[in-house]
Amino acid sequence: MKRVRLTLAQLNPTLGDFEGNVMKAKQAIDLAESTQSDLLLLPELFITGYPPEDLTFRLSFLESNRHALNEVVRYTLGKRTVCVVGFIDFDEDVYNAAAVIHDGKVRGIYRKIFLPNYSVFDEKRYFRPGQRLMILKFGSIKIGLTVCEDIWSPAEPLATLVSGNGVQLILNISASPYCIEKAKLREKYVSAKAYEHHVAIAYCNMVGGQDELVFDGASFVCDANGDLLVRAKLFEEDLLTVDVDLDENLRVNLTDPRRRYTHIENYPVEVVEFDEPRLKSDRLKNSVSQLYEREQEMFTALVTGLRDYIGKNGFKKVVLGLSGGIDSSLVASIAVEALGAENVKGVLMPSMYTSKESVEDALLLADNLGIETFILPINEVFKEYLQVLKSVFSGKPMDVTEENIQARIRGNYLMALSNKFGWLVLTTGNKSEIATGYCTLYGDMAGGFAVIKDIYKTDVYRIARWYNRWKGKQIIPERVFTKLPTAELKPGQFDQEKLPPYEVLDEILRLYVEEGLDAKEIVERGYDSKTVVEVLRMIHANEYKRKQAPIGIKVSKRAFGKDWRMPLTNKFKETL
Amino acid sequence: MKRVRLTLAQLNPTLGDFEGNVMKAKQAIDLAESTQSDLLLLPELFITGYPPEDLTFRLSFLESNRHALNEVVRYTLGKRTVCVVGFIDFDEDVYNAAAVIHDGKVRGIYRKIFLPNYSVFDEKRYFRPGQRLMILKFGSIKIGLTVCEDIWSPAEPLATLVSGNGVQLILNISASPYCIEKAKLREKYVSAKAYEHHVAIAYCNMVGGQDELVFDGASFVCDANGDLLVRAKLFEEDLLTVDVDLDENLRVNLTDPRRRYTHIENYPVEVVEFDEPRLKSDRLKNSVSQLYEREQEMFTALVTGLRDYIGKNGFKKVVLGLSGGIDSSLVASIAVEALGAENVKGVLMPSMYTSKESVEDALLLADNLGIETFILPINEVFKEYLQVLKSVFSGKPMDVTEENIQARIRGNYLMALSNKFGWLVLTTGNKSEIATGYCTLYGDMAGGFAVIKDIYKTDVYRIARWYNRWKGKQIIPERVFTKLPTAELKPGQFDQEKLPPYEVLDEILRLYVEEGLDAKEIVERGYDSKTVVEVLRMIHANEYKRKQAPIGIKVSKRAFGKDWRMPLTNKFKETL
Repeated sequence: MKRVRLTLAQLNPTLGDFEGNVMKAKQAIDLAESTQSDLLLLPELFITGYPPEDLTFRLSFLESNRHALNEVVRYTLGKRTVCVVGFIDFDEDVYNAAAVIHDGKVRGIYRKIFLPNYSVFDEKRYFRPGQRLMILKFGSIKIGLTVCEDIWSPAEPLATLVSGNGVQLILNISASPYCIEKAKLREKYVSAKAYEHHVAIAYCNMVGGQDELVFDGASFVCDANGDLLVRAKLFEEDLLTVDVDLDENLRVNLTDPRRRYTHIENYPVEVVEFDEPRLKSDRLKNSVSQLYEREQEMFTALVTGLRDYIGKNGFKKVVLGLSGGIDSSLVASIAVEALGAENVKGVLMPSMYTSKESVEDALLLADNLGIETFILPINEVFKEYLQVLKSVFSGKPMDVTEENIQARIRGNYLMALSNKFGWLVLTTGNKSEIATGYCTLYGDMAGGFAVIKDIYKTDVYRIARWYNRWKGKQIIPERVFTKLPTAELKPGQFDQEKLPPYEVLDEILRLYVEEGLDAKEIVERGYDSKTVVEVLRMIHANEYKRKQAPIGIKVSKRAFGKDWRMPLTNKFKETL
Repeated sequence: MKRVRLTLAQLNPTLGDFEGNVMKAKQAIDLAESTQSDLLLLPELFITGYPPEDLTFRLSFLESNRHALNEVVRYTLGKRTVCVVGFIDFDEDVYNAAAVIHDGKVRGIYRKIFLPNYSVFDEKRYFRPGQRLMILKFGSIKIGLTVCEDIWSPAEPLATLVSGNGVQLILNISASPYCIEKAKLREKYVSAKAYEHHVAIAYCNMVGGQDELVFDGASFVCDANGDLLVRAKLFEEDLLTVDVDLDENLRVNLTDPRRRYTHIENYPVEVVEFDEPRLKSDRLKNSVSQLYEREQEMFTALVTGLRDYIGKNGFKKVVLGLSGGIDSSLVASIAVEALGAENVKGVLMPSMYTSKESVEDALLLADNLGIETFILPINEVFKEYLQVLKSVFSGKPMDVTEENIQARIRGNYLMALSNKFGWLVLTTGNKSEIATGYCTLYGDMAGGFAVIKDIYKTDVYRIARWYNRWKGKQIIPERVFTKLPTAELKPGQFDQEKLPPYEVLDEILRLYVEEGLDAKEIVERGYDSKTVVEVLRMIHANEYKRKQAPIGIKVSKRAFGKDWRMPLTNKFKETL
């Protein structure tokens, strides 16, 4: 039995902040050294941040990334810990790579072999795949190195590394974005791989927000039986040191049919040799952070994504419209959790149709949260608009136009506050509205960040309920949950007048958008065919609004963002 | 000497309009049959339209595409012409494919081998690459089939088809989008390939607009010496029938070093056999359409892109703000050219800073174009906004906030007209403004289509000059060319107060955005270092505005659209 001590540095880089990222790497090296770790893992593309998108095409960006890596390399001089860190390697082409660094030298560079080019990923746009495997040899212990997708691909390098080369531990550095229950999925999948190949796996994930993506951390190590040894925190930076005990004798049963894997037979294996692991007298205690329940997980993802978007972009304060409805109430609560009450400003913008109750609820919420409010009525400005448009509109009945004008006055107010005070505007639209177009472009859609754009209305209620429970008091007033949703832009207007009940709508949306089912298949699940066709029609008809929508945090399997690339010009209709 | 008669059907499909696309295919088949063509070529993915983007993930879409193909197949029953048409093939995976159809049967399916995943293309997101070559044999004549990128890839199938298999004619069906002088580039490149491999090439391109892309057509055939035989029209549908004479004896010199191509040696070749070409008594006269000069080319691209965006999305009329400046003057002219004067509405929205000259110029332009105008002053509404915001803004000096409020009032007016009358709003911002953020989100950026967003300001002037010349009269008034550009949102405001001279700015932008040069390299070209750094800072700082901008027509090598995928959260700074 041999023992290897690993430190998994689950850190939160900022894209393009080479100085800041290097500083975090140095701190991790210091910690790994002080804990006598044999190996330190930093996440995929930690040096640059992930995903760098088209910055990858800029030589100046690539060179800054190389300089930053070199600074990390220099910092390891005289230190014993071997450090593995993600960066962009480039010579005649560009690679998503991991540098293996020791004692002031780059000892090896592993280039990611399997490049995801689906969902939110475009890695084949940027990188050339690697063509060699890498093994780090610590005396007699062989450790295989992989980057993110390498471990998810069915034609995986694990088989070749383990049964072909006798590797006992697989390292995986990742930048794996969050979606609901992703941490659970990763552990389930990776521990099954560990069991299948009979190899221990150390999985080091990134953490923090980058535009629409949130990395949830939850790094972990499982042993060769697939049993979880340690788990890092969710949504927070965490430096986790763990001792992994490794059998020196491979226990692979050569008659086991599971050994017939797809090998990457022709790939050469580069072996980088180091000293035996240091002898440690003690064995570290394993620490396993708790997973979250569904609502807490989503809430924390939103808080993390918002806090990092604001902070990393140099903002401090945010402003949003408070309507007294559930959406703006939840967004305000998330913002307070992310940024502190003193950094959140609420604006009430009553129309002539706004009820007394709405104003009361909005003010009560603001009071409960402790945020400053402003009241900017829209009626006088609206009347002035109608006055100017009177002659052009003469003879035409009132319609959605007048509702939109009012929504856009609100958008203009919020943007004026943003421009004057440097507050970023948060929009409060949810996924159900954005899917169906039940929102006004340049009106309630105006803003820099759409916090809950990937949260269905039914989940908005659930998360808000959970939030009150979690806080142990009724921060979001009870009436906000019980009254009918309305935009209050004309008399007696309620959401359900134009939309099916949210329980029905949200499930149709989920089946269509996330599960990829066709109209026919959704109807087979028991939904009314007319409703299904109408909902799908609304989704397609409002593509143009989503194209101009602010970005927001991806929480579901498929959000209206990088993973929803639809043409605007499109005559295809979903029918039965 | 053998003769093959080809019809190149350079047609304009509509994405997802299977019925319409099939009808166009049938008309082409009729024409090819009536001209005794041996072969009819329809463009890449003609059945679906291109690019179908994430619709490719929907089974219902794929099935509709298959039904549409089957309808085309049935239509060929009893006809002699062999028809090649692009569609999406799918079984256990999905392919960008060409069906070879004859006499009511699919005789072969070729799957595109080289999938572009760069620039505006994401084909590796959608398709699996084909793994076999295809040869159509008409008696003793061998014809190779390729799709778009197959012919552009340096590791091309041409070598294998020609020197490995004796092919004498290469067919290429494409959906190749326009950028400046692309038609010239294609001919130069493809005819060099023809010369290199000593093989005739027939290149059939798509035509028409699809969101930000415009396909410029300009299909052509060149002989085995690389000499152009025919060229179809630019930016218009065209059915071009041509006789290609083919040597029966390969003239390949086996000692020629150019024969050492990269072969796709291991790819099997599928051969589909047909009768000898029909004997024709006559030889058709070759028709070569003219290429355009640079300004005409860009103008026509914009007209085509706009006309198709409006028409294919079911709009008829458009509305835009007329400021009396060069940008809105050019956009109005393009719109009139694309849609007819009766379908274009101009709105003058004077502020308190608007000069008498601006109003005169806008009205004169509208009069010259024959379009209806409305005058909607913004001042009273603006005053009402200031009134409401007074207490919140008290003690704060006037700044860009007040300018933006005015720009957003204009945006609200235009959107109100759009909502009330169903007119689509055109924005008038140019590439220089959108690059530097010299524009107001939800203000002058509000609209459905940004006609000239990929045209630099200096090119706006050039195209406008060309337009007046082409029309043979001063449609855009002379003063519009000579006065200083201004947004007229505060007293004495001129563009050049905040921006470098447009001649300098545009060249820095072009070098950075299109050529991919770094700050240092741009300075080496002779530009002032402070200016360069400041321009690049503006580009990055305004990413958030572009993320919410309406789409517009790609004209340059790299537009702010599908081919500009930048993170918003980004601390990377271009320095010297």
